[in-house]
Amino acid sequence: MPNYTAPVEDMMFLFDKLRNNKHYNEIEKYKEVNSELVKNILEEAAKINQNLILPLAKTGDENPTVLENGVVRTPPGYKEAYKKFIEGGWTSLSCDPKYGGQGMPRTVSAFFDEMISSSSLAFKLYSELTLGAYNCIHYHATDEIKDKYLPKMVEGKWSGTMCLTEPVCGTDLGLLKTKATEQPDGTFKITGQKIFITSGDHDLTENIVHLVIARASDSPPGTKGISLFLVPKFIVKDDGTIGSRNGVSTGSIETKMGIKGSATCVLNFDEASGYMIGPKNKGLSQMFTMMNLERIVVGIQGLGLSEIAYQNSLNYAKERKQGKSNNNKSQNGGADLIIEHADIRKSLLNMKSIIEGERALCFWLSQQTEVSLNHSDPKIKEEASDLVSLMTPVVKSLFSDMGMEITSDAMQIYGGYGYTKDQGIEQLYRDNRITPIYEGTNSVQAIDLVFRKLVNKNGDVINNYIKMIKGDLNDNNDNLKPFIEKLKIYIEKLNIFSNWMKEKIKNSKDDANAASNDYLRVLGYVAIGYSWLKVLEVSYEDYSNNKDFYEDKIQTANFFFNRVLPRVESHYLSATTGSKYIMDFKFN
Amino acid sequence: MPNYTAPVEDMMFLFDKLRNNKHYNEIEKYKEVNSELVKNILEEAAKINQNLILPLAKTGDENPTVLENGVVRTPPGYKEAYKKFIEGGWTSLSCDPKYGGQGMPRTVSAFFDEMISSSSLAFKLYSELTLGAYNCIHYHATDEIKDKYLPKMVEGKWSGTMCLTEPVCGTDLGLLKTKATEQPDGTFKITGQKIFITSGDHDLTENIVHLVIARASDSPPGTKGISLFLVPKFIVKDDGTIGSRNGVSTGSIETKMGIKGSATCVLNFDEASGYMIGPKNKGLSQMFTMMNLERIVVGIQGLGLSEIAYQNSLNYAKERKQGKSNNNKSQNGGADLIIEHADIRKSLLNMKSIIEGERALCFWLSQQTEVSLNHSDPKIKEEASDLVSLMTPVVKSLFSDMGMEITSDAMQIYGGYGYTKDQGIEQLYRDNRITPIYEGTNSVQAIDLVFRKLVNKNGDVINNYIKMIKGDLNDNNDNLKPFIEKLKIYIEKLNIFSNWMKEKIKNSKDDANAASNDYLRVLGYVAIGYSWLKVLEVSYEDYSNNKDFYEDKIQTANFFFNRVLPRVESHYLSATTGSKYIMDFKFN
Repeated sequence: MPNYTAPVEDMMFLFDKLRNNKHYNEIEKYKEVNSELVKNILEEAAKINQNLILPLAKTGDENPTVLENGVVRTPPGYKEAYKKFIEGGWTSLSCDPKYGGQGMPRTVSAFFDEMISSSSLAFKLYSELTLGAYNCIHYHATDEIKDKYLPKMVEGKWSGTMCLTEPVCGTDLGLLKTKATEQPDGTFKITGQKIFITSGDHDLTENIVHLVIARASDSPPGTKGISLFLVPKFIVKDDGTIGSRNGVSTGSIETKMGIKGSATCVLNFDEASGYMIGPKNKGLSQMFTMMNLERIVVGIQGLGLSEIAYQNSLNYAKERKQGKSNNNKSQNGGADLIIEHADIRKSLLNMKSIIEGERALCFWLSQQTEVSLNHSDPKIKEEASDLVSLMTPVVKSLFSDMGMEITSDAMQIYGGYGYTKDQGIEQLYRDNRITPIYEGTNSVQAIDLVFRKLVNKNGDVINNYIKMIKGDLNDNNDNLKPFIEKLKIYIEKLNIFSNWMKEKIKNSKDDANAASNDYLRVLGYVAIGYSWLKVLEVSYEDYSNNKDFYEDKIQTANFFFNRVLPRVESHYLSATTGSKYIMDFKFN
Repeated sequence: MPNYTAPVEDMMFLFDKLRNNKHYNEIEKYKEVNSELVKNILEEAAKINQNLILPLAKTGDENPTVLENGVVRTPPGYKEAYKKFIEGGWTSLSCDPKYGGQGMPRTVSAFFDEMISSSSLAFKLYSELTLGAYNCIHYHATDEIKDKYLPKMVEGKWSGTMCLTEPVCGTDLGLLKTKATEQPDGTFKITGQKIFITSGDHDLTENIVHLVIARASDSPPGTKGISLFLVPKFIVKDDGTIGSRNGVSTGSIETKMGIKGSATCVLNFDEASGYMIGPKNKGLSQMFTMMNLERIVVGIQGLGLSEIAYQNSLNYAKERKQGKSNNNKSQNGGADLIIEHADIRKSLLNMKSIIEGERALCFWLSQQTEVSLNHSDPKIKEEASDLVSLMTPVVKSLFSDMGMEITSDAMQIYGGYGYTKDQGIEQLYRDNRITPIYEGTNSVQAIDLVFRKLVNKNGDVINNYIKMIKGDLNDNNDNLKPFIEKLKIYIEKLNIFSNWMKEKIKNSKDDANAASNDYLRVLGYVAIGYSWLKVLEVSYEDYSNNKDFYEDKIQTANFFFNRVLPRVESHYLSATTGSKYIMDFKFN
C-alpha cells in the first residue's frame, strides 16, 4: 500500500506567503481565518487522511462496491470511516455557518480536497458530490428548500448527486429525454434514465438528494428547455424527517477500470417526486454553477494523485539499488541507489516541479474564486469571475492529464513492481484515469476554453490575463531575471497563439477546434510558469528565513523553466498547421 | 469486446512495394517467399486471430491465470485454443525447417506478431517466449541439445522461458545470486530464485524449457561471471521422452494490472539439473541475442495494441452522435456523429499516422534483421547489424510509449464508456502498460541507445544512419518536396542533437543520461518520418493503380509531418539544458 504524508509545509507556505491578493484580503468574512487556525485544520486533516482514509483506497479496489438485491453496498470499512469523517465535520469545511458549516474559504478547503484525493479518490467522491449539490442548492433554491435539505447535507447525514448524463446524451445535454410533468401542487413527476451517476446510490447516508436535469412537458427541445429538479431518494416530510421511498431505483452499477469503491450508477426515475430549483428552463446554467466548481476539484484530484505517486516513487528510488551511476564511487562494482541515476532524478524533478507549480496555481485560483463569489464590488467580482472561467477548463484538463503522466512515470520508476497489484502504484494510475473523462472530457474542456472563455461579453479575457502577467514581471530583480526571460518567450508564444485562435474562431472554426487541446496546454504551462514566478519572488525575498526550503523551491522552479516550459514549442508548431487536411480526410 | 480486422491490405502493400532492400533480396533462402504465398499466410493468420484468439483477451482478463496446489492453470479456453494454434503450425512460422519450422523471414512473421498482439497479448506470450528461447538455443547450443529440444519447441508441444530477473536484480544483472554447481558428469545443479518469469509455469505444454542465467561456483562476480543454462521443467530422457520432474517449482504468480491471462511466475530452482549453453561466463551476450530480438517484438506488441485501439475508436466515432460540429447542416438541432468534430478527427489521424508509420519502419527493420543474420557478405551483415542495434531500443520504447498514448486516446473517444469494463477498451490500455516496462524499461533502452549504440567498434553508426537518410532524399520529385523540406528540418535537429550527445558522452555523462529519453524520441520520430517518405515515394509512383489507397497514405503522411514530427522541437529544447541542476538537487 502506498504511504502518504500530507504536504502541510508547502500548503502553509502558500497560505502564509502567497495570500497577497488584495481583493481576496478585502473579503470581510475571511478576515479571521488566520495562519494558526489553518495550520490546526491542516494538521488534523493530515491525520484523518493518513490514518483513516488512506487504507480505504486498497480496500475499495479489492472489494468494489456491489449492487445486491437492489441495495448498493460500499466496500468494507467505508461505513465506519464515513461515520468518523462526518463526526469530525470534514464535509462541512467550506459550508455556510448558517446551515452548520465551518465557513472556510476555498483557499483552505482546496488543500483538504487535495489530501483526500491523494488518500482515496473513490471514498472522496461520496462527499464531493454532496458539496456540489450543496453549492447548487445554496445558490439557486428557495429558503424553504435550503432550510429543509442543507443542514443534513452539511452534517453529512444526507449526501447529494448530479444527474446529467443519459445513454444518448453525455457532452451534448440538449439531447436529454428525462421528462418532468407538473402536478397540481406545483411539484413534478420525474421519469427517465440517468447513467454514470457518481454516488448515485450507497449505504453511507440516510438519504440521497439527487439534482436532476429534465425537460418539463411544455418546454422547448434542445438546451433551452432544460430545468433543474431536486429529487430525494426518500421523501422528506414537513418536519424534516424521512418518509417513504421515492420513485428512484438503481438499475445497475458500472464495473470500472478504477475508483472501484465509488458507486457509478444507472438510476431509473419512475414518476419520482421532484421540486424545481430556480426558474424553469434555466436548469443548465444553474447546473453549471455546480459543474464549474466541480471541474476545478477534478483538477485537484489529479494533483492529489500526482502527489502520492511522487512521494512513493521518491521513496522507492531512495531504497532500490540497481546499476552504477556515472559517478559511482564503489570499489567492488556495487550498485547505486536508483536516485543517483540522472534519468531517474530528472523524472522525479519533473513530477515535483509540475505538482508544486500546480498547487501554487490552484491556490491563486482559489483566491480568485472567493473574490468572484464574495467581493463587495460587482466590477471586481466580475473580473475575478472571468479569470476563474478562463482557468477552470485549464486546471481540470491539465492537472488530470499531468496526473496520468506522473502516475505513469511513478510506475516506471518501480519497474516490474509497479505493474503488480502489491505496491498499489498501478492503482493510482487506474484511479486517476477517470479524471480526464468525467465532468466533461478534456477535449470538451479545451473547446469550452477556446470558444467561450477567451473572449466573452465583458471583453477580451485572455488578453487581460496576458497583460496581467506581463505587468507582474519585475525585470529589476536580478535573481528573477533569468526566469523572467524564459517565461517571456512563452508568454509571447501564448500571445501569438491566442491571436491566431481568435482569428480562427471567426473565420475557420475547424482550425480552432483541432488546435484547442494544444492551446489549452500552452496556456496551462504558461499559467504554471507564472505561478512559479510568484513562488520565486517570495523565495528570494524571504530566503534567509528558511534557506533549505527556498533553495528547494528555486531549484525545482529552475527545472520547470528549463525542461517543462519548452513543451509549449511543439504544441504551438503542431497546432497552427490548420485543419483542412484533417477535415478532408476520408476515414474508410 | 473490441472487434478486430487484421490490416492485411497494409501489410501486403509493405511486402509488395517496400521490399526494395537490395541486400535482403539477395538472401538465397527467402527467394521463394513470394507475394501469393505471403498473402495466403496472412489471410489464414487473420482468420485464426480474429476468430480463435481475439475472444481469449476478455476471458483471460476476467479469469486470470491462477496457481492452485502448485499447478498453474491458464484461463478457460486457453488450452483448447493453444492446441488449435500449434496444430495450425503458428509457432513454427519463422523457425528453421531443419527442426520442423516453416522458415519464413521476419518480414512475414513480424506481421503475425502484430496480429496476435492485437488479438490477445496475454495469450501471445506463451508462444513468444518459446520463440525467444528457440532463437537462443538455435544460435548457441550444441547440435545434441538442438536435436533434443528444438523439434518439440518448434511444434509448440514444449514451451520456453527466459529466466533473468531476481528480487534484487532487474536491470542490473551483475547482481545476480543464482548459483550453478558443476557435477562430475558435466551437468550443473542450479539453485536460486527467479522472479517476473513470463510463462514460467502453465498447463498448455508438456514441458517447459527454461533458459536461466546463473553464476558458476568458480566464476567472478559481476556481469563477467554469468553463464547460461538450459533447465527443463521435466528431465528429457535420452530417447527424447519426458522423464521425472526437475527441481523447479512455482513459488507464486503475480497479480497484475493487465495481461492477466499470462502467468508471471516466481520460480524456485532447488538443485535443478541444468545444461550449460555456449561458453562459460559468456551467458549475458548469449542471452542478449534473444533479448534484442525480443525487444523488437515488444515494440510490435505496442503497435498491435495501438491498431486494435484505433480500429475500435474509429468505429465508435462513426456510430456515436454527440454535439454539433462546426459544419452542422441539421435543421432541428440534431447532433452529429463525433467523427465530424475536428478534434476527434485529429485524434484518430494522430493514431493512424503513427501506427502506419511504425508498421513501415518495422518492415524496414525486419529486412535489416534478416540481412544481419543471413547475408553471405560479412561486411554487409555487420552494417545491417549496426542499424538493427541502433533501431532496437527505439522500436521497443517508442512503439510501447505510443501504444500508451494511442490506447489512452482511444479511451477518451469512448468517454465514460471507455472507463467501464464492458467495452474492453480500458483493457487494451492495461495490457499495453507492461510494454514500456518489461524486457528492460524504456529508460534503460534509451541509455543503451545513447551509450552503446550511437558509436560502436565499427564506427559512428548514428552518423552513417543520418547520411543514409540524407542520401535517400530525392529533391527532384516535386510531390515529395514539401515532405522532404519538413523532414530536413528535423534531420538537422537530430544531427545537432547527436553531436551534442557524442560530446556529452565523453565529457559529461550525466547530461547525456538525463537527455537520453528525449533523444530516443527524436531519433524515433525522424525514423518514422523517413519510413513515411519511402511510403510516399511508392504512393506517388504507383498512384494511378490504386488511387484511394494511395490518397489515404499521402494524407495520413501529411498529418504525420504536420502534427507529429514537430514534437522533436520540445524534446530537443528541453533535453539540451544540461543536468547540473538535476544532479545537485537535494531530494529531502
